[in-house]
Amino acid sequence: MMPEATRSDDAPATSDGPLLTDRDGEVAILTLNRAAARNSLSESLVDALAAAFETITPDRTVKAIVLTGAPPAFCAGHDLREMTEARSAGDRGRAYFERIFAKCSTVMQAIVACPKPVIASVEGIATAAGCQLVATCDLAVAGESARFATPGVNIGLFCSTPMVALTRNVSPKHAMEMLLTGDMVSAGRAEQIGLINKVVATGDAMDSAMALARQIAAKSPLTVRTGKKTFYRQREMPLAEAYAYTARIMTENMLARDAEEGIGAFLDKRTPQWTGE
Amino acid sequence: MMPEATRSDDAPATSDGPLLTDRDGEVAILTLNRAAARNSLSESLVDALAAAFETITPDRTVKAIVLTGAPPAFCAGHDLREMTEARSAGDRGRAYFERIFAKCSTVMQAIVACPKPVIASVEGIATAAGCQLVATCDLAVAGESARFATPGVNIGLFCSTPMVALTRNVSPKHAMEMLLTGDMVSAGRAEQIGLINKVVATGDAMDSAMALARQIAAKSPLTVRTGKKTFYRQREMPLAEAYAYTARIMTENMLARDAEEGIGAFLDKRTPQWTGE
Amino acid sequence: MMPEATRSDDAPATSDGPLLTDRDGEVAILTLNRAAARNSLSESLVDALAAAFETITPDRTVKAIVLTGAPPAFCAGHDLREMTEARSAGDRGRAYFERIFAKCSTVMQAIVACPKPVIASVEGIATAAGCQLVATCDLAVAGESARFATPGVNIGLFCSTPMVALTRNVSPKHAMEMLLTGDMVSAGRAEQIGLINKVVATGDAMDSAMALARQIAAKSPLTVRTGKKTFYRQREMPLAEAYAYTARIMTENMLARDAEEGIGAFLDKRTPQWTGE
Repeated sequence: MMPEATRSDDAPATSDGPLLTDRDGEVAILTLNRAAARNSLSESLVDALAAAFETITPDRTVKAIVLTGAPPAFCAGHDLREMTEARSAGDRGRAYFERIFAKCSTVMQAIVACPKPVIASVEGIATAAGCQLVATCDLAVAGESARFATPGVNIGLFCSTPMVALTRNVSPKHAMEMLLTGDMVSAGRAEQIGLINKVVATGDAMDSAMALARQIAAKSPLTVRTGKKTFYRQREMPLAEAYAYTARIMTENMLARDAEEGIGAFLDKRTPQWTGE
Repeated sequence: MMPEATRSDDAPATSDGPLLTDRDGEVAILTLNRAAARNSLSESLVDALAAAFETITPDRTVKAIVLTGAPPAFCAGHDLREMTEARSAGDRGRAYFERIFAKCSTVMQAIVACPKPVIASVEGIATAAGCQLVATCDLAVAGESARFATPGVNIGLFCSTPMVALTRNVSPKHAMEMLLTGDMVSAGRAEQIGLINKVVATGDAMDSAMALARQIAAKSPLTVRTGKKTFYRQREMPLAEAYAYTARIMTENMLARDAEEGIGAFLDKRTPQWTGE
Repeated sequence: MMPEATRSDDAPATSDGPLLTDRDGEVAILTLNRAAARNSLSESLVDALAAAFETITPDRTVKAIVLTGAPPAFCAGHDLREMTEARSAGDRGRAYFERIFAKCSTVMQAIVACPKPVIASVEGIATAAGCQLVATCDLAVAGESARFATPGVNIGLFCSTPMVALTRNVSPKHAMEMLLTGDMVSAGRAEQIGLINKVVATGDAMDSAMALARQIAAKSPLTVRTGKKTFYRQREMPLAEAYAYTARIMTENMLARDAEEGIGAFLDKRTPQWTGE
């Protein structure tokens, strides 16, 4: 299913651009496609990701998204060569740095805001902003030789934006250890600390992520959309406010056709027919 | 100790009502008693739970509460038949839905607000609002064949209110996986992700929960009450505010008789005599 | 490396005071030195800790801090004898209690605010405020016979201030179990629930903590300082605010000399030379 890894420059997002966009039924597959640069997030790749989420978000034929990297890496973070080149500007790169970090943070938040579940399929390394992508996705599956790290501390650039996603997924001691040491964490350990959902055999991450995506794609899109949005909103509320908010959501959800159909089908022991309304 | 499971209608909370209230020394035992409906939360059961917490909260002879279900289930969530019947009303059920979700959220918050520890004893399934009950209790013990899920997504009704409790107990990736897939989670996995405290042999959950309840019931009720209330309040504060608040609580706690007695008994190597003041 | 445990009174913080301050290269070693009182936090020890952090914070020759206890304990929490003596005052100890809890909370927050990583090296017991110290440190390593508890509930004094650090490190069910039962938790379990980072053979905690400290001390102090501060600040922000904040931090970090040097060295495959600027 995955295209062969191709060496890619910052060409527009066509079939050999920095981001490949495929479809498998109701699942969209986004492949970071800069294999020679370990799929690092050049500005054009970040732009392509932003554009892809803008296109997919309103597309009602897409029910779930799998995000992966052209082998052998998942994503090595920002593109350090591009960043270094930016230093030659009159402002020592300030404008570029501001832009790239703002764009990258916007893409991460677009994944959270996207009403469709986004599942990371990880083989190889996921480091710095690559590790942030994994932490940001709703779900993540990894091959057992995948490795995770926030190694910015080793090159004088603390992984401060990756930390936002990391600390919202794993406990403080685990996050701090990754951030302060920069050490690689195995897929098994990543599963143990809650950074990913599941470890599978090396090479099987894509199959596992696709199975999960298809499972979710078969459910009512209205329900999934409502749930994902509510998940992230209620998380930032105090308990009483979260309950007041979700109780309202439940009532509206009950009055939607898909809940009537789903509950009716359950009570009648038949398969529901979703309309997404 | 547990009464035989009886088929129960929505009769008032007497010995064969939707909720059984028992006592074992200083421990109150609440048994969801709609076995034929897998102890699902009909409006009358939710009302009975609310009433039970109102009665028990000021009762100084109760030191801890165990919440369980009449075998074989713990609780299957909302009563889908009752919900479906409500659709025949002129407002398509809106008034009922608003009322039941508000009442249910109030009961969940009553468990949190109750000054006595509430311990879930789980055998069988704990799904949707049943899983929420487990997540909401202060502590939870389960038999090893117990199963947990938030399967609303399968019937078009996302588990948005259960999610409030779930996401405050387990990490986002684990919560999202349960919420988006609706899949059953084993007791072992539930323990691993922090949804429950302990797994015991099937059928032993009640003994284990009672042992925990008695252990806590032997402590100073003033201290336990202070601690539980402070736990949930400080959790929602920024660090500096949480320290300012808890430092004040510690001072008042030190000036209470039970702390003087407890610390004195500890230094004198004798058993403390609590007065609850 | 560690000095012999000495019986210590509340003498000033000299070589045999309540707190020993040692240096091993760029690592400062703070040793709670009241072995006969299981390194409990008398007012003079709390004062000595506060003073030590005030001294070390601006000291550019210190890159990391290891906090440990004179054997055999790490720290047994507050000094109950001193607390009991305070009851004989006219105000039944209120002024002392207010002062000691405020000072202790200030020290805990000084560890968080200190720009250098603080690593707990734990052998023996770490209970009550001793467990809070472990939870508060950025990283923690323990020998396998180390034991952790918040046992205040057993003596009528709920561990309300330790709870602030504990609940920000481990999941609610695990925290509640420790707080309500007061039971000892093994080093293995503490690692499992995220209270500590690593378990090593009994007696090896100090070597392991020092190795971690030296590893971090070899990194750019500017980067580590930026990272630690940002870690705790962004944690208390909603997602969008956290990203806006950290994106700004990343830009400033990129413009610092150490990032230019670190990234340049990485691209050139040479060892970076940090200036800390």
